[in-house]
Amino acid sequence: MGAARGCSIAGTLEIIGDRWTILILRDAFRGVRRFDEIQQDLGIARNVLADRLQKLVEHGVLEKRPYQDRPVRHEYRLTPKGVDLSPALVALMRWGDKHLAGDDVPTVLVHDACGDPLDQTFICWTCDTTVEPNQIKSRPGSGGRHARAS
Amino acid sequence: MGAARGCSIAGTLEIIGDRWTILILRDAFRGVRRFDEIQQDLGIARNVLADRLQKLVEHGVLEKRPYQDRPVRHEYRLTPKGVDLSPALVALMRWGDKHLAGDDVPTVLVHDACGDPLDQTFICWTCDTTVEPNQIKSRPGSGGRHARAS
Repeated sequence: MGAARGCSIAGTLEIIGDRWTILILRDAFRGVRRFDEIQQDLGIARNVLADRLQKLVEHGVLEKRPYQDRPVRHEYRLTPKGVDLSPALVALMRWGDKHLAGDDVPTVLVHDACGDPLDQTFICWTCDTTVEPNQIKSRPGSGGRHARAS
Repeated sequence: MGAARGCSIAGTLEIIGDRWTILILRDAFRGVRRFDEIQQDLGIARNVLADRLQKLVEHGVLEKRPYQDRPVRHEYRLTPKGVDLSPALVALMRWGDKHLAGDDVPTVLVHDACGDPLDQTFICWTCDTTVEPNQIKSRPGSGGRHARAS
């Protein structure tokens, strides 16, 4: 779509901007990686799941690995490029926790070293401070056409 | 969909899990708020845009405000609930910057106080440290049915 030119959000959505795709990625992060497991977990049509998995493999977000020989069966694992989507999935989860889940948060993300809940924030390393959304400005980068081409 | 029960990611996607919807929100963050401006910016069909805006207003993510009397014209502004989506949009943008834009990043987000680029990270306040995605674990929250109901 035209909106994708010069915008990294639109570009990302061309790859993962489909509800099923994001739920497949959520499952991959949770360790649900085999076709039949994902299919059952999501209640998704097999042809739709096959299509979405193939696209994620083509884009290098998931990789297909055999886990069984006879018959050959594959599982789908996150590549490093796929793991880099974790901030986006966590942000979607935290918004749902805050605005939809009420007091009953389904899942808590914790730091493996201490077991305490994690925060997700913006940081300015120059000022060594966290930054709120209303303290963020944008400017065109080297690939920007003008200030609005975010 | 069944996958939404007990999952804040799926719940969030039921509200904003549509490519147009996320691009409409991106425009709202950029200050593109009027129907005709958004329509022109995205090249979206008018009926689709009207539908998506109405849903975002119903869910309290955008609010409709008159900016002109005769004829009455409205603009769509982010509510505080909508502003809370900024970490998700920023995360999608940063992934696209890293994996799709190459060296030519379209937009740089900066700290308004100093003008330097921002980072987005996970933080453990107990350990006072940033946390990498591979250092994150999950546990069921008070609304979780079992460890996998993320």
